[in-house]
This record gives sequence, C-alpha cells and structure tokens, in this order.
Amino acid sequence: MSNPVLVEVLRGELVESAHRGAVCVVDADGATVLALGDVAQPVFPRSAVKAFQALPLVESGAADRYRFGDQELAIACGSHSGEPAHVTAAERMLARAGLDASALECGAHRPSHHPSADALVRAGRAPSPLHNNCSGKHAGFLCVACHLGVDRHGYVAPEHPVQRAVRATIEELTSTALGEDRCGVDGCSVPTWAVPLKNLAHGFARFGTGHGLDAARAKAAARLRAACAREPFFVAGTGRFATLAMERLGERAFVKGGAEGVFCAALPDHGLGIAVKCDDGAGRAAEAVAAGLLIRLMKLDAGERAVLGRFARPVLNNWNGIEVGRVRPAAAVLNDTVS
Amino acid sequence: MSNPVLVEVLRGELVESAHRGAVCVVDADGATVLALGDVAQPVFPRSAVKAFQALPLVESGAADRYRFGDQELAIACGSHSGEPAHVTAAERMLARAGLDASALECGAHRPSHHPSADALVRAGRAPSPLHNNCSGKHAGFLCVACHLGVDRHGYVAPEHPVQRAVRATIEELTSTALGEDRCGVDGCSVPTWAVPLKNLAHGFARFGTGHGLDAARAKAAARLRAACAREPFFVAGTGRFATLAMERLGERAFVKGGAEGVFCAALPDHGLGIAVKCDDGAGRAAEAVAAGLLIRLMKLDAGERAVLGRFARPVLNNWNGIEVGRVRPAAAVLNDTVS
Repeated sequence: MSNPVLVEVLRGELVESAHRGAVCVVDADGATVLALGDVAQPVFPRSAVKAFQALPLVESGAADRYRFGDQELAIACGSHSGEPAHVTAAERMLARAGLDASALECGAHRPSHHPSADALVRAGRAPSPLHNNCSGKHAGFLCVACHLGVDRHGYVAPEHPVQRAVRATIEELTSTALGEDRCGVDGCSVPTWAVPLKNLAHGFARFGTGHGLDAARAKAAARLRAACAREPFFVAGTGRFATLAMERLGERAFVKGGAEGVFCAALPDHGLGIAVKCDDGAGRAAEAVAAGLLIRLMKLDAGERAVLGRFARPVLNNWNGIEVGRVRPAAAVLNDTVS
Repeated sequence: MSNPVLVEVLRGELVESAHRGAVCVVDADGATVLALGDVAQPVFPRSAVKAFQALPLVESGAADRYRFGDQELAIACGSHSGEPAHVTAAERMLARAGLDASALECGAHRPSHHPSADALVRAGRAPSPLHNNCSGKHAGFLCVACHLGVDRHGYVAPEHPVQRAVRATIEELTSTALGEDRCGVDGCSVPTWAVPLKNLAHGFARFGTGHGLDAARAKAAARLRAACAREPFFVAGTGRFATLAMERLGERAFVKGGAEGVFCAALPDHGLGIAVKCDDGAGRAAEAVAAGLLIRLMKLDAGERAVLGRFARPVLNNWNGIEVGRVRPAAAVLNDTVS
C-alpha cells in the first residue's frame, strides 16, 4: 500500500516527477477534518516543531529574564537563512545570557541566502554556528539552561534537562509517548522525535488555539505565535514561503517547514492544525501542499491567494528564464470538500 | 498502482523517507534482464543521454575536423561541475570552430563545485554559460552546426538541423518515435524527449556494445565511451559518482545521470544497458540505485566494490559530522537473482 500522489511536477504537458505523501488536518479536539494517506505513521517532524521546542524558553521564564522581544522569540521558532539580521539576533540572545557563538553546539553551515553566503566568501570568513539555520533555536536552548542553572554543555543530548523539557512538551502537545525507539539525531544534533502525523497535526491545532493546554502553556503558545506573526522574517528569510505567508496572513496562520518534506501549520481562526509529510522528503512538494491547503482551508482575499498561489503552483524556469514546467498539487489536496 | 520503493533513507533505525521508481536492465537484443516497476512509462532522460546527443558530433566528422581529443569528447557527453579545467575545455571546443562563449545558448549558472563557485565570487565575476554544466554538450552542438554550414543561431530549437539529427539518433538507438507530444524543454533549453524506460535501457545496451547499430555509429559510440573512460573528470567532476566510477572501472562501465532522478549505464562486457528513474526526481536515490546495480551486475574486486559502495549506501552526517542516518537501496535492487 502506498500514500497518494500529493504533487505532480510537469515538464511541458507531461508529468516528469510525482511526490507521494500524507496530509492530516485536525481540529483542537483531535477530530480529523482531512486525511490523505497513512496519517498514523510516525514521522520525524524535524524543524517543523521548533515552536514547540521553544515553549520551555517562554514557560520557564527565561525569555522574560533575558528580555526577549518578538525577534528573539521568532528566531527561536525559525529556520533562518543566515542573513545578517538573523546572525545578530542569535548573537544578541546569547549575549543576554552572557554567552557567545562558541557555546552553540549546532555546527556551522553556509547561509542558504546566497548574497549572505557570497558576502562571507568575499570577506574570507568561514560560516560560524550563528549562520546555522537553527542558531536561534539553539540560543534559546542555551538560555533555558542558563536560566535553570544547569550545566549548559551538552545541552543537545536527549538526557540533558533542556531536551527532557522539550520532549515532555512535545509529548503533551501531541499526546504521544516518545521513547528512545522514536529518537533520531537532527541536522543540528538535538533529538528529533518521530510522531504520528495525525498527532502532529493535533499538536498544531492545540498550539494555535490553546485548547486543551494549561493556561501558562496556552499563553506561551500565543506569545510565540504573535512574535512570529510580527517578525516573520526571523522565522525564515528573504523570499521564503513561511516569511511571506505570515507577512501577509499575520496571526491567522502559523506555518513552519522541516527537512525531509515536512510542513506544519496552525490556523487559529479555524481551530485547525495541519501536518504534511512527503514520503520522499521533497521540500518542493511539502511547500506546494502546505500552500495549497491554506488556500483551500482559509478565507482569503485575492491578494492573499496570489501570494500563496506562487508557492502552491510554482512555475519552473530554466537557466535562460524560459518556462519549462510547473508544480501542481493533486486534486485531492486542493479540491476535496472539507468534511 | 505504484512503482516499488527503490531506496530508503534512514534516520537512526527508522525509515525517514523512501523513494519509489522503476529500473530496467536489458541486453543488446532488447531482452529484459531485470525490471522493477513500470518500465513502459516514458521518462525524460534529461542529461543521461548526453552521449547519445554527442553522436552526431562524431558521426558528422565535426569532431575530426576540429581535432577533438578525449577531453573534448568526454565533456560533450558530460554534466560538469564548472571547475576551471571544464571551462577551458568547453572554451577550447568553441575556439576550434571560431566561436566563443557568446555563442552558447544554454544560459549561465553557478559551478556546482563549491570552491570554483567561491573563486568566482572572490574574483567578482558572474558565472558565464561556460560554467553551465551543459557547456560541453552545447559547444559540441555548435561545432556540428558550423561543420554542417548551417546557421548556428537557435541551435537549441527542436526544428534546427542539429536537434533534428539528435532526435533521429535517439529515435534509432531507442527504437522510439519521438513526436512533439514527447518533447519537453531541458534546463539548458534544448529539447528533451520522453522515452519508455525499457527503450532507454536498450539504447544504452546498443551504445555499449554497438550491437544493432551501423558500423559508423558503433564506431562513434566506442570512441565516445573510450574518451569518457580515459577522461572521466570531464564527464562530471571532483568527487562525483560518474567520475569516480569510470576512473575505477574504465571502459567496463559507462555511467551518466540526468536531472529529476534519472541514471543510465552501459556495461559493454556484460552486453547490458541500465535505466533508472525515481518517480520523485531524487538524484540521491537514482545514484544509490545505479551504484547498487553496478555492484550487483558486474564482476568487481574488493576495491571496486568499496568505491561503488560509498555511493550505493552513503552515510548521512550532520553539521557536526555526526552520523545521523544512511541511504539504503531496497532488497529488490540489490539482492534479486539476475534472471
């Protein structure tokens, strides 16, 4: 048995490639609104749950102690492009706790934002851990460790108090017991815990509504959502889907992707959570599905639909700028009547 | 109905992503030796058939007229990384026909080889069409046009004499009629023609053996294969699979990938042609399958198996260099008995 095709990639009029996967949309009570494919299958949410991983930062009091504003909270939830403002925001978070980049255990990689990567090359500088797309999340973890007064070294290990708090948070949000058999190591060295897609969607419905959460967690979730809505540049970066979608939609949609074809969203006004996993790990497909689902599920004006439509049905141009194909979400993603 | 899983991507011990697709191995008579999935489905071969596209360069006499050696012929068959030696080889081909980079209609992109891309940035230079991975192929097309005495402008159009010759060559090698309904525009603006996977594999069996080809074509194919075996750096580049495989295996294997998850190979000693298409377009999967098939089908020594094994079962490391997962071809790819 296989999951359905969620996205087709056309070259001219022929389907050149196709992406299968699963989609789940649930309400805050956990009732399924839309399910395509095997939504019981555990998936590694990767960076899609950075906002869940940031809840202890707010709930512990660390965010207040270190006077974090919207930019700091947004980048703690973000996978940024390594642009200069991202680097300085992560650096600022660390400085508030008396730390610098040397405390980060995420590893270094080039900025995904090409002009920023080129600027480093021109300056003869190697990328630092601050350029890692996860540096805001990691700065948040370090601040939690400092605030709790525990040894910050090894804060990426599953047994470290910070990761234990993160795991407990994800377990509660998703109603899923996360044992060692569900644990993988993420690109930035922290644990990533495999969660059934339906439970992941339920977690986002709760995160978006506060429904079923204790008052402190509901308040922390609302604070993170508001921060991301006000500073969406810090969740992703120039020209990227999450940034442009939240710039346009504000608090009406929290959207966040993860590596290997994951995309999650919370639609507070509709009381819905969304989780998408493309079987093959393709980000191009997950993004098109996520954009398509927002168009399908939200009440949008023409301008909003146009912004999302560029990500739902991107045109593929070749090196000469000639249109050679397009990406098209399947009818099951776009057209089915919401039950 | 869906194609089988060809490759699994594990994070820790859990399958995080999986790639479906089709595989066909045939002999030079067109008899199927191995078939997984729908091998009758037409697929765009993209750059995997650059060697077929280079046959008119040799058959027309252009390669002799312009005194092309192994490097020029290999890069005409190649998808290079934009390293300095690649750029100068393509430039040399053009100069032999009295042309320069301004004649290329492939468009420009950054070298895929990071140090070469960085060197351009440091020099404050934009990538030129010579850096396009297809510049050797395009230089070959231009040389054919000049040799034939036809207008070189618009040599990328389907109706241009050069592309008509290329189409006829692919039609004959693959026993496939290529009408307009099979035509897409490739990344470098030339036509790419959709061919059933089995016919594509048959084309490579013929290319590798000369069986069923007229004497001139068989000789041209052997010349291109020998050139690629002697100068495999010009088919791909530093550290890449096609280059390392052919460095190690010489004329025993001609291997060439294409965009969107295509990989083809010819095994002359075994009289076999191989074609792989991953449904989702994933290059990581196509490469692992191709490497796995070479291990399965060829008689290899331990050193050869080790070189190919690094591509068949690559280890995935994160930004800290920690092993977080691996890529694993499915049992159906590796273990089935060859019929």
